[in-house]
Amino acid sequence: MASSPNDILENGLALTPRYDAAGLIAAVATHAETGEVLMLAWMNAQALDKTMSTGEAHYFSRSRNELWHKGATSGQVQVVEELRIDCDQDAVWLKVWPQGDGGACHTGQRSCFYRVIEGGKLVKRP
Amino acid sequence: MASSPNDILENGLALTPRYDAAGLIAAVATHAETGEVLMLAWMNAQALDKTMSTGEAHYFSRSRNELWHKGATSGQVQVVEELRIDCDQDAVWLKVWPQGDGGACHTGQRSCFYRVIEGGKLVKRP
Repeated sequence: MASSPNDILENGLALTPRYDAAGLIAAVATHAETGEVLMLAWMNAQALDKTMSTGEAHYFSRSRNELWHKGATSGQVQVVEELRIDCDQDAVWLKVWPQGDGGACHTGQRSCFYRVIEGGKLVKRP
Repeated sequence: MASSPNDILENGLALTPRYDAAGLIAAVATHAETGEVLMLAWMNAQALDKTMSTGEAHYFSRSRNELWHKGATSGQVQVVEELRIDCDQDAVWLKVWPQGDGGACHTGQRSCFYRVIEGGKLVKRP
């Protein structure tokens, strides 16, 4: 029975994202087939709406301060297989099919997480 | 050849996390075996240090404003299989082995992402 604000947030079936002071929620994209974490980015309400209405991942670019249709220039469009939201509705998880060259990172790597932390240093490992 | 600040950040092998104004970076934990995204949380420098030195996930609780050794009270300790950092070093990815009851979410669900967004509403789907 959903009654308290927390209950409604956690057990309810209404989409009520809790955007932070900057109007953003975190968004993690994984590869729909391999499960690899491809990137962690941000969405504002417009980006989430566009993602839902188009079926392609839209984020909010904090560096450019604008809506970012992933792949619009790079070709690395992400077709959304499934979109989930977490318990307190301040993060979403997108399972995506990367298009174009299959990459997600502007560095050319398949995933943005191409370095492992080992012994306080970084080791490149695809 | 790493030369510009961006090159060093993205191609270098030095761990230089870029904490936000609140001193935090995003941390996504996935199940080491299934790849399921379990939770999205936050780390400050101390949490990252503790995670590296103990091999168990530590986060920073924004609601309690304190270091959070995941599982210290719930038993849902997360043993870290691998720790990665992203291109611009403002997010980490932990592959973890959940201990205790195998859950990660305070609601009792295995993952915090137990609801799918469909048609603008939420559907519970483990």
